[in-house]
Amino acid sequence: MDEIERRVAQLELRLREAEDRLAIYQLIATYGPAVDGLAEEVVAGLWADDGVYDPGGVETMEGSRAVGAVVNHRQHREFVARGSGHVMSLPHITITGDTAVATGYSNVFLREGDHWQVCRTSANRWELKRTADGWKVVHRLNRLLNGEEEAVAVLARAF
Amino acid sequence: MDEIERRVAQLELRLREAEDRLAIYQLIATYGPAVDGLAEEVVAGLWADDGVYDPGGVETMEGSRAVGAVVNHRQHREFVARGSGHVMSLPHITITGDTAVATGYSNVFLREGDHWQVCRTSANRWELKRTADGWKVVHRLNRLLNGEEEAVAVLARAF
Amino acid sequence: MDEIERRVAQLELRLREAEDRLAIYQLIATYGPAVDGLAEEVVAGLWADDGVYDPGGVETMEGSRAVGAVVNHRQHREFVARGSGHVMSLPHITITGDTAVATGYSNVFLREGDHWQVCRTSANRWELKRTADGWKVVHRLNRLLNGEEEAVAVLARAF
Repeated sequence: MDEIERRVAQLELRLREAEDRLAIYQLIATYGPAVDGLAEEVVAGLWADDGVYDPGGVETMEGSRAVGAVVNHRQHREFVARGSGHVMSLPHITITGDTAVATGYSNVFLREGDHWQVCRTSANRWELKRTADGWKVVHRLNRLLNGEEEAVAVLARAF
Repeated sequence: MDEIERRVAQLELRLREAEDRLAIYQLIATYGPAVDGLAEEVVAGLWADDGVYDPGGVETMEGSRAVGAVVNHRQHREFVARGSGHVMSLPHITITGDTAVATGYSNVFLREGDHWQVCRTSANRWELKRTADGWKVVHRLNRLLNGEEEAVAVLARAF
Repeated sequence: MDEIERRVAQLELRLREAEDRLAIYQLIATYGPAVDGLAEEVVAGLWADDGVYDPGGVETMEGSRAVGAVVNHRQHREFVARGSGHVMSLPHITITGDTAVATGYSNVFLREGDHWQVCRTSANRWELKRTADGWKVVHRLNRLLNGEEEAVAVLARAF
């Protein structure tokens, strides 16, 4: 391989990693607007067909269709009717070939009279895989940061 | 075109999209520090000359000079004097050639005694265009997530 | 230099800047999970050996070992035991060769009964340098957004 071809091959590898990071940011930035916007298909489309969402406290959802249906859950509809923002933080990301883990926070802001209350601050672990249709969620785990060791461990597992 | 030239052209196209995403993140990450830092010129410089900011509740601002002047509004000065943080979330971004839409949340944290209260959680839609001077805001729309359908629709329009 | 070599050299320069931005996002997104996850070595590893953290209100920490030890401070342990999230915002970044400044917000969400209270909203200035081991913090300054001019100035210094 000549020198220029070697440099181009290097660029291709490096750019793919940058694009992977940006695609994972985009995936995580999609979740909030999709659930607060009641966009069931969009929520479902973030997960792999057999992906899982374990939000803690309520039943684990199995399969992208079940995850998308979260927008129709009674409590979710009550939150949206009252005014809610599911805000994900900029995540820490580790990419290993065709899989990745993103770790961060989710805050749910819920209207309470003339202001918004933080009704949940959770540790989030997103396990992702690269598919022909882009990065998809294989498993998402949320645990409330309420002093339980489990939530602290979710954050520490990032490293 | 030979094989290497084709690969280089591909890299140029892909890198431009990555750079566009990073530039839009930077634009949105500039807004908060600029308004809370009372940097009028910086706020104005984010908007196109004829760009619009419709924050909801108060009058729509037309033109970048009017938007920059937000830092001198009485209520804004009161917020800064009391202690405020205008925090934008990691946005969902769709780029279409020389235009883009970024959708996310803004939270305004306002000091209230020994803690901060979330005095606003809003859905944000940023319509952007590429200019010779980088990406600029053509139209920004905020709506409080207070249960009104309009704010839910702002989020759903991202998709 | 021939035309293709010139284009490849341009791509290398531009990609490095994109990678730098992504690396700085990653660094800042690591801080929260590391402190809330009690990962002392990870916190320490974000700072240069002689890096400084001036959080305001308490003593300035000098050296990466002292910064990492923050996870063992009595107040920090109390926060974690009660349930805390140190959430950094998407930062504004300026890169100048081998140094960079990132400016944004940190919010500390602390459990208070059935919800979380924002116990701190701070302006953050991260001064960074490129090292053989990646980007490291040379100096981090936090100031509470409590109406004091100093915090407003921390934000305005970004520009």
